[in-house]
Amino acid sequence: MQHHEVDTDRLTAGEVLAGYLHSRAGDFLRGLRLYGESGSDTAAAEAAARSLRGAARRIGGGLHTFRPLLDPVWADQLRTELGWLSGTLAQEQACTARLHRLVGALARLSGPPPGPVPARAEAGSGAQPPGTLTVGASRAGALLERQLTLARTRAHSAALQALGSSRFHAVADAVAVLASEVPLAPVAAAPAIEVLAGPGDSTERQLLDAVAGLPLARAAHPYNAEALVHGLATASDGEAQDAPWHQVRQLLRLHRYAQEVWCAGGAPDPVLMAAGQALDRHRDAAEAAAAAANAARTPRIAPTTAYALGVLHADQRHEVEAARFAFQQVWQRAAATAP
Amino acid sequence: MQHHEVDTDRLTAGEVLAGYLHSRAGDFLRGLRLYGESGSDTAAAEAAARSLRGAARRIGGGLHTFRPLLDPVWADQLRTELGWLSGTLAQEQACTARLHRLVGALARLSGPPPGPVPARAEAGSGAQPPGTLTVGASRAGALLERQLTLARTRAHSAALQALGSSRFHAVADAVAVLASEVPLAPVAAAPAIEVLAGPGDSTERQLLDAVAGLPLARAAHPYNAEALVHGLATASDGEAQDAPWHQVRQLLRLHRYAQEVWCAGGAPDPVLMAAGQALDRHRDAAEAAAAAANAARTPRIAPTTAYALGVLHADQRHEVEAARFAFQQVWQRAAATAP
Repeated sequence: MQHHEVDTDRLTAGEVLAGYLHSRAGDFLRGLRLYGESGSDTAAAEAAARSLRGAARRIGGGLHTFRPLLDPVWADQLRTELGWLSGTLAQEQACTARLHRLVGALARLSGPPPGPVPARAEAGSGAQPPGTLTVGASRAGALLERQLTLARTRAHSAALQALGSSRFHAVADAVAVLASEVPLAPVAAAPAIEVLAGPGDSTERQLLDAVAGLPLARAAHPYNAEALVHGLATASDGEAQDAPWHQVRQLLRLHRYAQEVWCAGGAPDPVLMAAGQALDRHRDAAEAAAAAANAARTPRIAPTTAYALGVLHADQRHEVEAARFAFQQVWQRAAATAP
Repeated sequence: MQHHEVDTDRLTAGEVLAGYLHSRAGDFLRGLRLYGESGSDTAAAEAAARSLRGAARRIGGGLHTFRPLLDPVWADQLRTELGWLSGTLAQEQACTARLHRLVGALARLSGPPPGPVPARAEAGSGAQPPGTLTVGASRAGALLERQLTLARTRAHSAALQALGSSRFHAVADAVAVLASEVPLAPVAAAPAIEVLAGPGDSTERQLLDAVAGLPLARAAHPYNAEALVHGLATASDGEAQDAPWHQVRQLLRLHRYAQEVWCAGGAPDPVLMAAGQALDRHRDAAEAAAAAANAARTPRIAPTTAYALGVLHADQRHEVEAARFAFQQVWQRAAATAP
């Protein structure tokens, strides 16, 4: 993509916003066509679904942030539908990623493959082949693989069903219209420089308020053991402490998308990118930890399996804590060097 | 205790060393008398055993570090016996501390007690009383309590048996002799300033070499997940990565005791104290993690118990990692500010 500052001095707010939404609608329709053409090519289908989802999220973000410049009823309705669509399409990929994360963690927790075997021990038959999991770890891995593969299959069916539904066709039609025409509010006729900044600033303020509400002082102290504080409590307690971080993750993304409207195709702000990546990792680790805890509730599992799942759960909760630490580091460094 | 620099200019090495050993032998005999008088007063017995052990470790450390100034056969023999004695006496206290650490961790992992119950929820009967453990956590706690209480009882019997043995009486006799007379090597007749520094420097060099061999660069990076890398591997792998840290812990103590010979009753070096405390925590957490893993190998435990023990094991291994981080911070800060 080519980087070009939008000429906010001469264009109206409606022209700038419509230009952005037109481009993203084009991305959406292109992603949809590529998805349809991908056939049995899983990698191509995944890439197409990813670009479709990215476009849907950006359009939804634009409709949310710049709602005052748009027909609000239309914007709210389309945003809801785009949220449903990108949420539905995200599930399959999320199951795959979660399984990779958990299986990778189990391999890591079972230790690195042993180094070269000393000559003296070569004759011994007790040495395990490199990377062999212990009984508990391999049973836990097999259980998670069964459960997450099943979930992925269900998510795949749900995605296919969604893409064949009349609800989806209505969304696709609405986006196709958006590619040529955006229902604007009267205020959008004002110059961009006068009315486009307000909604973007409001999103940024929400983000800064939400970040100010995070326990960053605690997160700055490594090994604070906060993320595991509910490690053996009920699941809902654990989720409660994650919620403000998930909220910041979403506001950060909205803010980043709002910036794209001003500077289409420009390099994204590295601080927002790094902070967003830390919070993506936070979300992924939290969900992986929940999947491990959930698998441990499977009836009739062996104690060794349950033990491995307990270790895995705690490991992923520490990843959650590590992600909070990483976010805090990025954010504080940015605040310290801010002009 | 009063702080006084030892006058190494005028005294012989033998006089300085004998003075130190005399004092520690006095501490040992006083601890022994207090232990005998403590009767059923558990706190007094524990305090007496602690001071007895501290004196035994210091005498043993002196015999080790300053061996070149002593009759080596006598020094080696007494040191072995003191090691046996302090090791035997340490077990009971270690079991108590380990149980407290693990039960405390289980309570922490079950979340803080809920805050004031909102008025609306007061009528509900579903709310748990503050600090209630989940089923898995309380079963795991009960299992650990049974196992560690049994271990403590055994350690107590072993300590009583040791204190009644002829082997112990031989040690006590040797220490009583030490309170008045130390079998010195001929070189100890030289001025302290000439020959006392060498052995102490050698201990310090061993310490610095051992610290240089630690993976401090890795430990400096928070959340490196190193301590749990063998979390699901065999127990011996986990112990292998801890061994160099345990080794530094012992050398640090030897170095601290060697410094006491020079500066009896002086305030201990705060860096050595803080570094030693970090490594004590490292050792305690490593042993607690091992106790949790060990409890999980109990036959016929429920999966929820095993799960809680897995979370607990991982939590304590993270404490191990946190202690390495703390040690690294103390050590690096000291190196940065060293003259």
